[in-house]
Amino acid sequence: MAQKRVVLEEGILKSNDLLAQKVREDLRRRRILVTNLLSSPGAGKTALLEALAQNLGPQMAVIVGDVQTRRDAERLERHGIQAVQIVTGGTCHLEARMVLRALEELQGTPRYLFIENVGNLVCPAGFDLGEQQRWVLLSTPEGDDKPLKYPEAFLTSHVLVITKMDLVPHVPFDVDQAEAYARSLNPRLRIFHTSVITGEGLEALLAHLEHTYRSLFPDA
Amino acid sequence: MAQKRVVLEEGILKSNDLLAQKVREDLRRRRILVTNLLSSPGAGKTALLEALAQNLGPQMAVIVGDVQTRRDAERLERHGIQAVQIVTGGTCHLEARMVLRALEELQGTPRYLFIENVGNLVCPAGFDLGEQQRWVLLSTPEGDDKPLKYPEAFLTSHVLVITKMDLVPHVPFDVDQAEAYARSLNPRLRIFHTSVITGEGLEALLAHLEHTYRSLFPDA
Repeated sequence: MAQKRVVLEEGILKSNDLLAQKVREDLRRRRILVTNLLSSPGAGKTALLEALAQNLGPQMAVIVGDVQTRRDAERLERHGIQAVQIVTGGTCHLEARMVLRALEELQGTPRYLFIENVGNLVCPAGFDLGEQQRWVLLSTPEGDDKPLKYPEAFLTSHVLVITKMDLVPHVPFDVDQAEAYARSLNPRLRIFHTSVITGEGLEALLAHLEHTYRSLFPDA
Repeated sequence: MAQKRVVLEEGILKSNDLLAQKVREDLRRRRILVTNLLSSPGAGKTALLEALAQNLGPQMAVIVGDVQTRRDAERLERHGIQAVQIVTGGTCHLEARMVLRALEELQGTPRYLFIENVGNLVCPAGFDLGEQQRWVLLSTPEGDDKPLKYPEAFLTSHVLVITKMDLVPHVPFDVDQAEAYARSLNPRLRIFHTSVITGEGLEALLAHLEHTYRSLFPDA
């Protein structure tokens, strides 16, 4: 049984990779930068996207994955940006086929497309959604040991965003330790410190997005 | 393929239920109260168990599930209690067969056995581990909307422990709202407010454990 399950999951991953490739090529052709956001529940993915929306406006759009409810899409729409909600109904991660279906609903051509994955630090790491970059968010109240305990999310990401920096005085979180753990897994990880309360780090993240966009699409 | 996967997963769940039943009967016979702890990464499962260990001492033991590392077992052993670590190596939840194997390593007969599940608010909810009660932990920095977004963990639990109450002044978390959302899913949920920093709620939790133990094993 275990053996059969492994073979089947390999099949699912392989067909996911093919669909992810299709997403990536399609969005590259349309010159849309796609970022896949991973984190635990409540680490601040939606709050960070709300803060970016205040600067990027309709240049950005979001595909939001949740096990249940349209709450996050509604939060984002209040900022005047497009948000397409995927309700997975129990599944603990998004898959490329869900993104492909969501893309049919996407209007126009935003410059930045964010995919807000299901809040989960384990399952989403194994699924390529066709993104050009992956961000993992780690909020300070979660503790600085999380990179070691959930390595795949940190291994497969390009950017680590440490969120809720405003809570550092109130929680046992050693920023240097967290960074050292994350870099021990993934030395090339770019790291940003942010707080949507104080605004810390948002300009640097926006500059990183702009820079990534220009390197991918130099003729745009 | 999707169809085949569903059938296979039903098979896995059914065989899990049989093994969970075996765990439950075995531990009931030995008069051990088993509690399965579910939460997001970093919600404070290990910290809560450390606080309980200070009161319960060797009356309690823990089976700890993690994707990687023995860190949590080591933290708990420092409090002089038995901790058996299960490293799932990628799997996002514990299963009853893993608990059965861990039980072979458990020495003696503790009164209270806790199973600290993998930090994940989605996958563990679907797997009975043979526990007599299930606790879901929600930490205040995660936000009060989590019961609606991750309903199964709240639906299948007997107790909701709201952790990190000391952070309430610093985070946007409405305690009444969180409770109302959780009770709308599961009206019989017992709710405790705790902080391992201030000690809030620990006595009430200990009393609840004692009371549950006495109702399950009146002749003990």
